[in-house]
Amino acid sequence: MTSTGGEWDASQLREYPFPLENIPRLDVNDPEVGRCIAQTQPVVITGSKLAEPALKWNLDYLQEHLGQCMFNVFAAKGTGHKFMYYDPKKAANCKDFEPQMHAVDMTFPEFVHRFRTSKPEDSRLYLQQALNDTVGTAIVDDFVNFNWSWVTAQQRTHDWGPLTSNLLLISMEGNVTPAHYDEQENLFAQVQGYKRVIMFPPSQFGCLYPFPVNHPCDRQSQVDFDNPDYEKFPKFRNAKGLQAVVGPGDVIYIPMYWWHHIESLLGGETVSVTFWYKTSRIPQTITYPLSPQQKVCIMRNIEKMLGEALKDPAEIGSLLHTLVQGRYPADTRDFMSPT
Amino acid sequence: MTSTGGEWDASQLREYPFPLENIPRLDVNDPEVGRCIAQTQPVVITGSKLAEPALKWNLDYLQEHLGQCMFNVFAAKGTGHKFMYYDPKKAANCKDFEPQMHAVDMTFPEFVHRFRTSKPEDSRLYLQQALNDTVGTAIVDDFVNFNWSWVTAQQRTHDWGPLTSNLLLISMEGNVTPAHYDEQENLFAQVQGYKRVIMFPPSQFGCLYPFPVNHPCDRQSQVDFDNPDYEKFPKFRNAKGLQAVVGPGDVIYIPMYWWHHIESLLGGETVSVTFWYKTSRIPQTITYPLSPQQKVCIMRNIEKMLGEALKDPAEIGSLLHTLVQGRYPADTRDFMSPT
Ligand SMILES: [Zn+2]
Ligand SMILES: [Zn+2]
Repeated sequence: MTSTGGEWDASQLREYPFPLENIPRLDVNDPEVGRCIAQTQPVVITGSKLAEPALKWNLDYLQEHLGQCMFNVFAAKGTGHKFMYYDPKKAANCKDFEPQMHAVDMTFPEFVHRFRTSKPEDSRLYLQQALNDTVGTAIVDDFVNFNWSWVTAQQRTHDWGPLTSNLLLISMEGNVTPAHYDEQENLFAQVQGYKRVIMFPPSQFGCLYPFPVNHPCDRQSQVDFDNPDYEKFPKFRNAKGLQAVVGPGDVIYIPMYWWHHIESLLGGETVSVTFWYKTSRIPQTITYPLSPQQKVCIMRNIEKMLGEALKDPAEIGSLLHTLVQGRYPADTRDFMSPT
Repeated sequence: MTSTGGEWDASQLREYPFPLENIPRLDVNDPEVGRCIAQTQPVVITGSKLAEPALKWNLDYLQEHLGQCMFNVFAAKGTGHKFMYYDPKKAANCKDFEPQMHAVDMTFPEFVHRFRTSKPEDSRLYLQQALNDTVGTAIVDDFVNFNWSWVTAQQRTHDWGPLTSNLLLISMEGNVTPAHYDEQENLFAQVQGYKRVIMFPPSQFGCLYPFPVNHPCDRQSQVDFDNPDYEKFPKFRNAKGLQAVVGPGDVIYIPMYWWHHIESLLGGETVSVTFWYKTSRIPQTITYPLSPQQKVCIMRNIEKMLGEALKDPAEIGSLLHTLVQGRYPADTRDFMSPT
């Protein structure tokens, strides 16, 4: 597997049963960019030079300049293409949980070797490593030369909290990160290869059926996009997505609580760098009805509180059903799963 | 309608579709009384002399000795026999709510007149007045001579909080207070006539379908015991009650969060005095699984919190359904509605 360097075409996009519209693609100087971010609407930003020094970060370059430390690498289960994240701490408390990927930490040369000699029957690999000062001096030089002035201006303009991490993502072609949401603002910089990003707004929480908060797969959709179970997840029929393909030099803004599914298109490795920021502080004035984001936050807090109060996650569902059944009608207007 | 002074017989008890066992009836000196109260199990206590000076509180005596102040009297809607309590503050925010009783405050002589001249087509009346120092000096004398040493010993032994109120209840025969729970410990002293008390433990919360906490009828069962809607309230089929008939001199302990339905049997007015105490403080050590009482408290807090956070009560159900549907299975063991 070597990078072809070529462009992607539509035949590479997996087919899904929900409608998709395009995420706007705007030049960094277009004032509409700031409006999108201010309204927590996804946007592809071109020309920002955010991670320009990383545009040369192919496997050869990285192998030469990364240090000899161990890297976080995930291997998908069997010959699967999906890398569904899970929380190892929550997994330790969850007896019947079977992870769909597992950590196989290795040095960078070993990763490159396995990447390049991978056969169809081998597990797919996905490197996901926080960029920190153990990664090698040349890489740190590139990192220092990212367009920090632009990204810090975004942080200030939109009243984001501190930068929490930069993750280096190196994926095999065809790998899929299934739909999930994060609890931070993400400026996602694509530097090698192409990724397709499908997104759903937080208002579609009810269509995407995230695992319970205390489940190891918290924040991940339970719906298998390749084979949706409409009996269990009937409102997935109402899901309506947005999509974009990002290539080298593009940055996509993934707002907090927005669902995102990301697939690496054909053409060798894809390399991305994330910029995660804490969200802005709670606004001084609260307006009603609350936003879908605020409702997701409330639901998460109820689930966490119940996990702590009841200790046994199995009791949470029982209590919630007792709380709801015959007491709160199901047919009230459903603000979290539009039809 | 005048008091017959006679005993009750089983033909006076309304028929309901759930099984009933008897609440133990124990002498005040039986050490089992203390064990029942310690375990928050209902018990009828005989011989306590708790409200002995009130055993003479029939309508004539009360009319003679009560002051000229206004008394809280409720009138049932139409010719109904049910007095379902509602919270006027919550009712003010609930447009479609139709109370099943209304307040018609009056002097005591007026109450006695209406009580004694009541015809079948008239609204039934139920006086529910807090005993305080405006009620007349002779009555205050009786009140002072209640068996405070016994009841205060119960309070100390069981680590209850302060006495919050004593309610004087004067009911027409056949009046029913439908099933509800209170948030305090109640020693309920019967002084005139007979009342039948049906109770259900807090673990049957799921069978009794209380109104939402933000509804005016918070703490009341939605189920009409005379005509249960099993489509809406299927688990009411699993309800299993306890019952007792209490007469002059009996005291029944109604623990916090225990459901109680109370009917005044035939034989003229029934008069009762309640002793409500705040519950004991939270225990130092919490054991798991939590008790049904603790779970009821958690459910109430979730509903209250959602009411405050979302402002619009109609949004609470929508959020709770989104939280539960397709995420928390309905078939986990249901600890709040035993089968
Ligand atoms: Zn993510
Ligand atoms: Zn009560």
